[in-house]
Amino acid sequence: MELKYKIDELKSYLGQHEKLVQAIGLIYWDMRTNIPSKAGESRAKVLEYLSGESFKMITSPKIEEFIKDLTPYKNEMSLIEKRMLEELERNYNETKKIPEDKYVAYVGLCSNSELAWEKAKDANDFEIFKPYLEKVVEFQKEFIEYWGYKDDKYDTLLDKYELGLTTEKLDKIFSELRDGILEVLNKIKESKKKLNRDFLYGHFDANKQKDLSLYILEKIGFDMEAGRLDVSVHPFTTNFGNKDVRLTTNYHEDEFTSALFSTIHEGGHGIYEQNISDDLECTGLQTGASMAIHESQSRFYENILGRSKGFCSYLLPVAKKYFEDFKDVTLDEFYEAMNYVETSLIRTEADELTYGLHIIIRYEIEKELINGRISVSELKDLWNKKYKEYLGVEPKNDAEGILQDMHWSDGSFGYFPSYALGNLYGAQMFNTLLKENPNIMEEVKNGNLTEITKWLNEKVHFHGAIYTPEELIKRVTGEELNPKYFIDYLKNKYYKIYDVE
Amino acid sequence: MELKYKIDELKSYLGQHEKLVQAIGLIYWDMRTNIPSKAGESRAKVLEYLSGESFKMITSPKIEEFIKDLTPYKNEMSLIEKRMLEELERNYNETKKIPEDKYVAYVGLCSNSELAWEKAKDANDFEIFKPYLEKVVEFQKEFIEYWGYKDDKYDTLLDKYELGLTTEKLDKIFSELRDGILEVLNKIKESKKKLNRDFLYGHFDANKQKDLSLYILEKIGFDMEAGRLDVSVHPFTTNFGNKDVRLTTNYHEDEFTSALFSTIHEGGHGIYEQNISDDLECTGLQTGASMAIHESQSRFYENILGRSKGFCSYLLPVAKKYFEDFKDVTLDEFYEAMNYVETSLIRTEADELTYGLHIIIRYEIEKELINGRISVSELKDLWNKKYKEYLGVEPKNDAEGILQDMHWSDGSFGYFPSYALGNLYGAQMFNTLLKENPNIMEEVKNGNLTEITKWLNEKVHFHGAIYTPEELIKRVTGEELNPKYFIDYLKNKYYKIYDVE
Repeated sequence: MELKYKIDELKSYLGQHEKLVQAIGLIYWDMRTNIPSKAGESRAKVLEYLSGESFKMITSPKIEEFIKDLTPYKNEMSLIEKRMLEELERNYNETKKIPEDKYVAYVGLCSNSELAWEKAKDANDFEIFKPYLEKVVEFQKEFIEYWGYKDDKYDTLLDKYELGLTTEKLDKIFSELRDGILEVLNKIKESKKKLNRDFLYGHFDANKQKDLSLYILEKIGFDMEAGRLDVSVHPFTTNFGNKDVRLTTNYHEDEFTSALFSTIHEGGHGIYEQNISDDLECTGLQTGASMAIHESQSRFYENILGRSKGFCSYLLPVAKKYFEDFKDVTLDEFYEAMNYVETSLIRTEADELTYGLHIIIRYEIEKELINGRISVSELKDLWNKKYKEYLGVEPKNDAEGILQDMHWSDGSFGYFPSYALGNLYGAQMFNTLLKENPNIMEEVKNGNLTEITKWLNEKVHFHGAIYTPEELIKRVTGEELNPKYFIDYLKNKYYKIYDVE
Repeated sequence: MELKYKIDELKSYLGQHEKLVQAIGLIYWDMRTNIPSKAGESRAKVLEYLSGESFKMITSPKIEEFIKDLTPYKNEMSLIEKRMLEELERNYNETKKIPEDKYVAYVGLCSNSELAWEKAKDANDFEIFKPYLEKVVEFQKEFIEYWGYKDDKYDTLLDKYELGLTTEKLDKIFSELRDGILEVLNKIKESKKKLNRDFLYGHFDANKQKDLSLYILEKIGFDMEAGRLDVSVHPFTTNFGNKDVRLTTNYHEDEFTSALFSTIHEGGHGIYEQNISDDLECTGLQTGASMAIHESQSRFYENILGRSKGFCSYLLPVAKKYFEDFKDVTLDEFYEAMNYVETSLIRTEADELTYGLHIIIRYEIEKELINGRISVSELKDLWNKKYKEYLGVEPKNDAEGILQDMHWSDGSFGYFPSYALGNLYGAQMFNTLLKENPNIMEEVKNGNLTEITKWLNEKVHFHGAIYTPEELIKRVTGEELNPKYFIDYLKNKYYKIYDVE
């Protein structure tokens, strides 16, 4: 009785905080989709103010009281209640380490830094963004001092996105991943088969692309009554609870795949958020298990599903209705074009195989930067050097090099590895899915994706952040994260496409 | 020295409150333009929470302290400081009368009531909206008891939008207005001249309408770098400071004028807000002098300017570029079609002449309703009866009758008179403008509206809420509000168009 009362009290407090967080989230979304250019600076101040209020709520002595009052009841608690308390405690202890004024100043900086990044990218000039980035990096370094660290300062940031992740673990995983990718890539280079994707370039009307994107989004299971699709420079997903999940994409009229696969990618994030249990409202757990698990869902929809032969066989006749250009394209041609491998400059447009190398480059750069072994001034040269070395390509300008991603502008250092880990988690889940449902990809050919989405809903989405990523992957697949599934998946898929081995 | 310090302290406090109000405003805007259908209820709770926080700030003992501390310095204060203090005191005293829980419950009710109104309008069924409206009216009646009243309960609501306005004053003004309108209307009925506006109906592509709306908006002086134009069921304007002013409109593909003139109308509101002095930030005065003064600007741009012969002569060749249908239309035909008089059902689409009658109907109904002389159940019959009596038309369904306006859904009783007063203020200002610049309408023919907008900027917009409406109209025109200017304007314009007298 007492426990229930205390839990309700906590939930009501967290519910208030969630409302504030939703308002903040809406302002962020608006800044990236709608805000008039002259309003950026003053809106940043609104964000600062509200973030300060949010910070106050989450570091308030009330929270310490909740923790103190509830801890003795841990054994009587349900799983959700226990995890709610754990998350609260972890979050409280971490957040409290940062002084409020630092945090508020940082929030203000980030929104201005994001606007500067956009401007710099438009102008193709890293110098516009550089002073902001320098400040963001300084803040991050200062925060790490507050948070503390053991061996590697970068570990502290990795842990924010993937609980317990370290450079030691990641070095090992990424080395296995790199070797696997290079093995496949080298085989492909030897292949005599030449793929064609010329028909993916031409003129693709943005309005038609939008209609197709919306159509496919609903098809894969995104609920448009609980979400939206808009346009922004850098596609992203944000949500306010599970009934308002907002995706963005970006239409390029000169080619076919970019917007569509961005949409499907963000759709994967969106389907995750929309299907988290209502029971997790006001618990702090109504969110993904980790960013890598989140990316496992988006990259699953984008690649494992979206670029599968089954899905291509469904997509092609639909695409033909929108774009005459595909009139004479065969399924094999379409499937091969979707999976054309080429080392390239832009991460978000990279093929599924070489994508991991883009991440490894960023991971290595971030490690150096955060540990103070290189400065922001040296970033660009290092970036270009690594692209040359790993991918054999060199950016002709800042926009297609160092400025291509928005992540650093809001200080998301430590986030990039989530994408690659997401590929690994996703392939491992896919392996289990196929074992449990050997014929499930047959259904995809007919555009029937319900079974797959249902499986993911039940196994992953529904549980929100009840389980840690480690617990979740074990529950879903029976074993811990293992890069072999992704590498096997790559070999299996690309050897066939390129007619090798 | 001490005064400056205290003023700065107050400004900083009001600045924080403004930030909260901006977040609330953005949520409102989003609810009317973007929100996915399933998210309405949960967003209403976010609004409730933030409105409660805003209420706390504005009724906090801190405000009482500010007032107590600052009042002794009144004689040393600048005009802005003095007005800031007066507004603070008035607002504090009024707001404090309402218990916080009532206020918060009311905010929640209103957002749900708005959604119900939208649903009801879509479904063409007043019954869906009725239970919400009943509750909104009950709240308003309760609030009036808290606020207090002298002779007429409705006076208390009128005063919210136009300081010092009473039914006694308004009965007199509206009786003069009605007589004037009817005099012109009767003359027109006798006229043998038949106007043609058939060419305004047909097919007008929504995207083209949007392009034209945006073009004209910039032409009249709306700054797109400090604002936006979106779509909503009921066009409205909202703003977050003077650098983010958002308008909405609603495109109907079967006719030409509705969206364009809605845009120009909202553009008038928007130009007002964009040009309020930066110096009024954080003073509580960075807003219009009153809702009627606000409407004077929107209706000035929409009608006095937008439907003038000069503007039509500029607009026609532009419109021809967008729509072939106008190829053979002459300026006289175009001008006459824009000013076609016909008693009709929908207020927002009414012509400039009969518009006032729509307002008078609403005014009379609201008076009865708020004083408890009729109930919500009787509204529809009374509405239909009055439309028959005043305008000779009868709604065939709820959507074109009682459900056409959103105002009652969020409890804006007492607002409607602002539109008619706006017409009067606007015509009186126009009279002065012409006296001071006899040739100004010549410039309009060439699409040069800068001089007019500059005049309004200087005389009206810049001052925000520094002056009361009474003070402002005296400053601008040298005398108090006088309906004769509008009635003379109507006679002068419509007798010519209809070839009478």
